[in-house]
Amino acid sequence: MSSVNISIIGAGSAVFSLRLVSDLCKTEGLYGSKVTLMDINQDRLDAVYILASRFAEEMNANLEFSKTTVLEEAIKGRDFVVNSALIGGHDFLDRVRAIGEKHGYFRGIDSQEFNMVSDYYTLTNWNQLSFFLKIAKLMERHAPDAWLLQAANPVFEGTTLIRRYSSIKMVGFCHGHYDVREVAETLGIPIEEVDWQVAGVNHGIWLNRFKRNGEDLYALIQKYAANYDPRRFKPINPFNVQMSPATIDMYRFYGLVPIGDTVRNSGWKHHYNQETLVKWYGAPWGSPDSEPGWQWYKEQLGQVTGATVALAKAIEQFPEASLEKLIVEGSRGLSGDFARQAAQLYNKNSLSGEQHIPFIDAIINDSSARFVLNTLNEGAIPGIEDNVAVEVPALVDREGIHTEAIDPPLPERIVKWYLKPRVLRMEWALEAFIERDSDLIVEILLKDPRTKSYEQAKAVVREIFETEGLSE
Amino acid sequence: MSSVNISIIGAGSAVFSLRLVSDLCKTEGLYGSKVTLMDINQDRLDAVYILASRFAEEMNANLEFSKTTVLEEAIKGRDFVVNSALIGGHDFLDRVRAIGEKHGYFRGIDSQEFNMVSDYYTLTNWNQLSFFLKIAKLMERHAPDAWLLQAANPVFEGTTLIRRYSSIKMVGFCHGHYDVREVAETLGIPIEEVDWQVAGVNHGIWLNRFKRNGEDLYALIQKYAANYDPRRFKPINPFNVQMSPATIDMYRFYGLVPIGDTVRNSGWKHHYNQETLVKWYGAPWGSPDSEPGWQWYKEQLGQVTGATVALAKAIEQFPEASLEKLIVEGSRGLSGDFARQAAQLYNKNSLSGEQHIPFIDAIINDSSARFVLNTLNEGAIPGIEDNVAVEVPALVDREGIHTEAIDPPLPERIVKWYLKPRVLRMEWALEAFIERDSDLIVEILLKDPRTKSYEQAKAVVREIFETEGLSE
Repeated sequence: MSSVNISIIGAGSAVFSLRLVSDLCKTEGLYGSKVTLMDINQDRLDAVYILASRFAEEMNANLEFSKTTVLEEAIKGRDFVVNSALIGGHDFLDRVRAIGEKHGYFRGIDSQEFNMVSDYYTLTNWNQLSFFLKIAKLMERHAPDAWLLQAANPVFEGTTLIRRYSSIKMVGFCHGHYDVREVAETLGIPIEEVDWQVAGVNHGIWLNRFKRNGEDLYALIQKYAANYDPRRFKPINPFNVQMSPATIDMYRFYGLVPIGDTVRNSGWKHHYNQETLVKWYGAPWGSPDSEPGWQWYKEQLGQVTGATVALAKAIEQFPEASLEKLIVEGSRGLSGDFARQAAQLYNKNSLSGEQHIPFIDAIINDSSARFVLNTLNEGAIPGIEDNVAVEVPALVDREGIHTEAIDPPLPERIVKWYLKPRVLRMEWALEAFIERDSDLIVEILLKDPRTKSYEQAKAVVREIFETEGLSE
Repeated sequence: MSSVNISIIGAGSAVFSLRLVSDLCKTEGLYGSKVTLMDINQDRLDAVYILASRFAEEMNANLEFSKTTVLEEAIKGRDFVVNSALIGGHDFLDRVRAIGEKHGYFRGIDSQEFNMVSDYYTLTNWNQLSFFLKIAKLMERHAPDAWLLQAANPVFEGTTLIRRYSSIKMVGFCHGHYDVREVAETLGIPIEEVDWQVAGVNHGIWLNRFKRNGEDLYALIQKYAANYDPRRFKPINPFNVQMSPATIDMYRFYGLVPIGDTVRNSGWKHHYNQETLVKWYGAPWGSPDSEPGWQWYKEQLGQVTGATVALAKAIEQFPEASLEKLIVEGSRGLSGDFARQAAQLYNKNSLSGEQHIPFIDAIINDSSARFVLNTLNEGAIPGIEDNVAVEVPALVDREGIHTEAIDPPLPERIVKWYLKPRVLRMEWALEAFIERDSDLIVEILLKDPRTKSYEQAKAVVREIFETEGLSE
């Protein structure tokens, strides 16, 4: 048992925080640890604090919780800092998207080729990127030996940025790779029997290895794709796109199956308008990155936030109530994903799927577990510069991160047609941010199929940056 | 005096051929050489043959001419093969451009970001690229020690292609860098006093060094740009764009002055439509890459072709006539560039500006002269792969090509925002050609601001490739 000091920045995101707390409660090797919850929203922070404390109590987990609204206090002397904060929240994303749409940019200017995810802003998210660096700089001063576990988007740009401009230990997380499971399930293969590997950049990863007992299971995928009938695809929610027509189309062009959010991150072919989105990602939503799909997601988030505060109030007023009962019964009204996630919180046999706590466990207790992590390339993917963050499998132990050899290597088709253009957009976005030069955002938009004139690009950037005070 | 065997493929281009012949006549170190003119157009070949022979006679140059319509005959046993042929001619370019415009692609689908030059097709020019490889393969068999001097466009794609897929000695030529002279003249500085360097890729070169006696002349450029008034820019012909508003705009963004055809090869900002072209490249044409600008160019070409055939007929009928008189007096009716070029043919003190003959002289007579050449990068420009053709200054002597160190190096702004995207487009175009996969051309068009739907891109590519029989 090794106790550590962990803090969660942006802990007001109740679902994320409770998933991590739940994982901690199921990881006895980290009992005795102190967990600091930090958020600038006092109400949500208070609610999550109450729920987290009660949750650990009911799980008989030896953990100690504290809360703060002050960033520095959540960093000083910590061993692990998890950052999940979204600066400006969804309101910021919505405002920027609305200005973009007003100027003719469907789904906003941050929706770009190979990065269509609706809360993964890379062009206008300067406050978010600044916050990433702020945490890193505070850690250099107040917790120089600590690990920064980056959960907040954009993970690709963020990981590259922090690793380039800071000396702290840092790694980026995403759970998109778990959708390998869905590929296996669809083909009727137990995931435990599969020898799989993914590689690429965050939200741009590809199933480069997919074998069982040495046999290449891509033969099955090929057959599946050959018989695929897009009319039979019926997603159960907007995020249910792993086996969508877009996936099959990408597989046919790129030669490997895109995994997780990669499916959403294709080019304009699948994203021109609502009709196109529905065609490629299924009715009625057309992916989470459509107007109705994103609306669905925000409604879910709203419900959860409401439920979180209500649950915390209930526990305060009726300390004798069982949180477990309240959560499991109360979440039945929620749709698919959230209900399943809520039920899983109390399931002792299964972790949440977030990798943060197992990662801490691997580092502290030397367990040598396998993860899919965002870390600097350093040769893992040939053709991509060493100082670019890639998302690859790695073993983690007390010594740190040991990236797996990517075998077989990613095909040239993916490196040349997908990763290199995506890396260039990352470089452009980071330069614009570092130089605080919104003219570079205009330049990026001049390469955008939605731009009809220089004046249009100039006008949309001016309005966004002035309205949001971003250039200051 | 070292006699060599030289052939010119596509010799029916009278201006180009006569410029080379004129240079040869003024290069006594190559007297005794044999020159083979090759073209599939018998009429134009005959005319050029008559004119070249008579020209050398009048110049008292010891050169021997032959002509052929058979490619192999122009290659076997040669020491230098100059290729200037455009397979399909301007008719092919015009047909493909027209189909593109019919489908909503202003100036045709081959007009792409950083490659807007109207006879520099990279997406549909498969016959041209095939011909490049055909020459190289014939040379491997029939003239393995000879040099291939590539003059035909696309020089960037062509040089990279031939160097990757053939073992012959090969170098690409362009005369765009001579516009450094116009930059110096505009600033009132004699070019002879300037220590200059350019670097980049063909039609994408930048003035990285511009000094006099150690003093950086960019201070003058900065002042010039600060006082630049776009309303005062009046081009004398469509090609007169070196000091156009587009140049100043590119200089402001990229930090260096674009040289020669690079000015034409900007992004969509300067190329959306005729109005935009006129704004950035001057009235009335708006660059050579506009409808009226290209029309102007083709009319000039037509006049010269007509004059060539007429001159040859005159010499045949009146063998006592002076070709010099006919050329110099006859060309007075032609506009600017061609009249000057015609007059220069007989000027013993000045070469044409084409680099091919001086290059041959440097190799054969070990003169160690300076050129600007297209050759594999091999580290000259950091950030660009070794096996990509770059355009850089080099000394040439009997040992071959010695690329200069690029000093100062190109700024990151140019490498990251201009060269890397241009290199990617070259890689995409070459892969499409090598794989004979027109779906890849569709994929390239999906990244094009003019594309509104996948169906549009698919339809234009299908029509072009079917009409022209390109996929066969």
